[in-house]
Amino acid sequence: MINGIGASPGIAIGKSFVLPNWEWEMTDQKIDVADLAREFDRLYEGIRTSKFEIEQMKDELREVVGPAETTIFDAHLAILDDPAFMNEIQGMIQRQYKAAEVAVKEAIDHFVAMFDLLDDEYMKERALDIKDVGNRLLKHLLGAPEITLPSDTQPFILVAKELSPSQLAHLNPQHVLGIVTLSGSTTSHSAIMARALGIPLVVGLDIDDTQEDPFQTGEMLVIDGSEGIVIIDPASEEVDHYSELQKQEREDRQRLRGFANVQPVTPDGKKLELAANISSMKELEVALSSGAHGVGLFRTEFLYMDRQRFPREDEQFDVYRSVAERLDGKPLIIRTLDVGGDKHLDYFDLPEEDNPFLGYRAIRISLDRTDLFKTQLRAIVRASHYGQVKIMYPLISSVEEVRAANRLLKEVMRELQEEGIPFDEALQTGIMIELPAAVQIADLLAEEVDFFSIGTNDLVQFTLAVDRMNEQISYMYDPFHPAILRMLRTTVEAAKSKGIKVGVCGEMASDLSALPIWLALDVDELSMSGHAILELKERLLHTCQNESRELFADLLRCRTSVDIHDKLKAYDASVQ
Amino acid sequence: MINGIGASPGIAIGKSFVLPNWEWEMTDQKIDVADLAREFDRLYEGIRTSKFEIEQMKDELREVVGPAETTIFDAHLAILDDPAFMNEIQGMIQRQYKAAEVAVKEAIDHFVAMFDLLDDEYMKERALDIKDVGNRLLKHLLGAPEITLPSDTQPFILVAKELSPSQLAHLNPQHVLGIVTLSGSTTSHSAIMARALGIPLVVGLDIDDTQEDPFQTGEMLVIDGSEGIVIIDPASEEVDHYSELQKQEREDRQRLRGFANVQPVTPDGKKLELAANISSMKELEVALSSGAHGVGLFRTEFLYMDRQRFPREDEQFDVYRSVAERLDGKPLIIRTLDVGGDKHLDYFDLPEEDNPFLGYRAIRISLDRTDLFKTQLRAIVRASHYGQVKIMYPLISSVEEVRAANRLLKEVMRELQEEGIPFDEALQTGIMIELPAAVQIADLLAEEVDFFSIGTNDLVQFTLAVDRMNEQISYMYDPFHPAILRMLRTTVEAAKSKGIKVGVCGEMASDLSALPIWLALDVDELSMSGHAILELKERLLHTCQNESRELFADLLRCRTSVDIHDKLKAYDASVQ
Repeated sequence: MINGIGASPGIAIGKSFVLPNWEWEMTDQKIDVADLAREFDRLYEGIRTSKFEIEQMKDELREVVGPAETTIFDAHLAILDDPAFMNEIQGMIQRQYKAAEVAVKEAIDHFVAMFDLLDDEYMKERALDIKDVGNRLLKHLLGAPEITLPSDTQPFILVAKELSPSQLAHLNPQHVLGIVTLSGSTTSHSAIMARALGIPLVVGLDIDDTQEDPFQTGEMLVIDGSEGIVIIDPASEEVDHYSELQKQEREDRQRLRGFANVQPVTPDGKKLELAANISSMKELEVALSSGAHGVGLFRTEFLYMDRQRFPREDEQFDVYRSVAERLDGKPLIIRTLDVGGDKHLDYFDLPEEDNPFLGYRAIRISLDRTDLFKTQLRAIVRASHYGQVKIMYPLISSVEEVRAANRLLKEVMRELQEEGIPFDEALQTGIMIELPAAVQIADLLAEEVDFFSIGTNDLVQFTLAVDRMNEQISYMYDPFHPAILRMLRTTVEAAKSKGIKVGVCGEMASDLSALPIWLALDVDELSMSGHAILELKERLLHTCQNESRELFADLLRCRTSVDIHDKLKAYDASVQ
Repeated sequence: MINGIGASPGIAIGKSFVLPNWEWEMTDQKIDVADLAREFDRLYEGIRTSKFEIEQMKDELREVVGPAETTIFDAHLAILDDPAFMNEIQGMIQRQYKAAEVAVKEAIDHFVAMFDLLDDEYMKERALDIKDVGNRLLKHLLGAPEITLPSDTQPFILVAKELSPSQLAHLNPQHVLGIVTLSGSTTSHSAIMARALGIPLVVGLDIDDTQEDPFQTGEMLVIDGSEGIVIIDPASEEVDHYSELQKQEREDRQRLRGFANVQPVTPDGKKLELAANISSMKELEVALSSGAHGVGLFRTEFLYMDRQRFPREDEQFDVYRSVAERLDGKPLIIRTLDVGGDKHLDYFDLPEEDNPFLGYRAIRISLDRTDLFKTQLRAIVRASHYGQVKIMYPLISSVEEVRAANRLLKEVMRELQEEGIPFDEALQTGIMIELPAAVQIADLLAEEVDFFSIGTNDLVQFTLAVDRMNEQISYMYDPFHPAILRMLRTTVEAAKSKGIKVGVCGEMASDLSALPIWLALDVDELSMSGHAILELKERLLHTCQNESRELFADLLRCRTSVDIHDKLKAYDASVQ
């Protein structure tokens, strides 16, 4: 048994297939001056073929994993157009008479070494991208064959040193039971893609470098992508144990499906709206099949990501309208563009920032680039004619920002009116409460809008000054910190006292342990990933609001996170 | 008149001296194989001389500007030892038979181009460092002369395209009236040094690139380093105007000196302790000459910065004891190590972080590296025998952290007791209140410590999610935001209700406009740069606590920052 990091949940049991590493044989012959033109032709042909392949992969994958996960291929295409990389290759051919494949190989090695030297996670990711694209180009120059995967009739667990997104893209999810990579992290592009494809993945195995590679093709493997466990040649009891777990997982999914049409009400009669966070039509379908009450958060940034330029008003309108119509009268909260921080657009040159989370982001960009903002507002307002659409502004820190955004909204409405375009004049506006400042002045903000949605992820990060993606201190990221519980209370009380609605759309909304807190505070709506709705609903059916109130009062008396977590655990145990 | 950015305050009037750019003539002769050894000798000799010069500059400057501003030279020394840079140079000599100076020049160009390519502020700074060191090395290889500055008898205003820290280090502050650089920013190493040296500096001039360079040596110039103004060949009225301003500045300084021994009391009898933030003995002297009540913040990280390894217990003890003794019974609050974020140690390999402000910092490092922390605690506790020493922990987010730190403190005290080493057993402990979480649970934290010190800089940054060094959004950094005013009130009320002392040590403490807030809240102490104490004291002598209370109540009723700033401005005008 080898320990690793669980990067995509689920259990897989099956035969292994170990991916051989790409190794190349290079000529050491200089090329003849007369053959320079031919060598350049070979290079350009290789680039063309590589680009074509990447475009093709991108198209194929977009259908399966959605546009957000295919942006990596744009980065790959950009490398093939990168002047620094290409000049280096061309220079070596032209001035040093190296064969195209040798020049490409040396350029890869040079750039990878250079980026690795910088000792920076981002740069290392770029190094991996260059290696990936470079190897593809080399493959064409050397006429090397694609790696032959086991035939389609035989599902397998793939084992590799590292797996590039383009290698992953070649896999048929139907025939890959699971994946193990010796290196890698949970935040790599490959891990994101594996999760989107629903393939169990274990990365970063805890193996001594000096040891021999423990994997051979054809062995029996068990992997647990939640716990990060790999078992080679498992004993029959182990196979039985994990088969049982696998069976249970499937049964759980089956049982939960039965709750799709059950009303989300506690035993003592409190009804909670369970809505979905979505970024695509595909996710909307998952949400609807789970009986979602509506969409509590439509992340529009993904509409901006899969392209070479900002989406036009009509392009946006078409999407918003489709979602609104598909919801058939159920509420749809559209959040305006929330890029910056860790979310970037290829065609929008955001500044490099020392602390991007504390930087030029979200509503700050919208209020600065009012051209972009008004285009989006027009598209949303137009869509409001086709369903129950609401607008939500992200990262609000002050009354001024809300007023500035609403002023632009009014302008847009006036324009549409003059143009005779129909829209919902009673369209509601709300804000994300995700900054400590917003909590502090929640009473003032509540007088400016129709609803709040608490974004717990950012709120916890700023309140505790903890970037939860930072491994060294992520243990400090604690949504149940006494300061956070007080802030949740302050926010909800401010909303209630002004008579506006309040929901929650951070990850804490789907945390089963947090449910009593929401019931005690009497929030109106919880919005979460469509996958999470049914499990939370099941728990809701067994959790009393009255008991929740007692528990929360108890939690508020705690001085430390440890005490709070102890009480929550004890309560969890009593409910199950 | 040309507009620029004021990077170091003050007015200078005088003749210009335009620094010529370094330009080199390079041989294009390959060297003979027989001369390889000689070429390497030249290279190594050049490196030795360069290192010697840099060490010398570092020593000279440390006296003038303090250890913190000389770390740049360690970075320069490190480049001369950098294997990537040196391998490239050696490779070009050995394999391509290039002369040492040619190899150095090409290596500089290559690395600078590479770093520039990355389009990252940090990398661009590194590129500048490589250029600076490389040019020094080139100078020795080519036997080029130092740039001759005007003779010492004639003070001048220096004009340069850009100015490297090592060029600045060569200047005699007695003879440089002011500096203008065409490029540059307020946060560059050169700007920091100019401020420390007290030389007015204007950077980043607003000049069209295509225009001719507007400066010539020997012209009359006026520069205003506060407003960022440069006037070439000023009219006599302009010279008169700025001479008058300059005179006024000097008179103001003179007048303020008269307040050094005046008690800091409001007209209606509220006494406020005005203490100093220091990082060195030199700053302590400034503080004492301004009549500081004590040291409200001793930043110990600067003790860790000027060296190749962590300071030993005795090295720390000597400094803490000297400061305590020099204070002669006045209070000395020593803050434990506060590195990470934007403060790094050359010899302590902190991780690269996406959002360093939300990362591995301050008390988080101390509680993780208890070996380092206990060494520091021992040194502080031992020093407590020689004055009124208090300990302060930075970046506290929870009761658990305070308890963990105090547990280690108790351990250290027990050890010292066993060793028979004397210390103050009643030594007080306090914490920085600089995270939104700490404000939220200030009532709980107040039961764990003897005092609070509010760190407004970080508190504002986290509450509003604004990195104030980020040019794009720094306009949002607002210590008078309604959310901040409420947080200040919450914090002080929590401290008062538990009967512990509360001070302020962020930049807001020395902001004249904020004074009525501190008086209204009835804080015990304000701690600030020694330079700022007298001006604040003068204002204090004319500000009533009762009026302040009315004003603050008024401010708390405001919904927007704009309203608050308007009311503060009106009040400021009424006091002056």
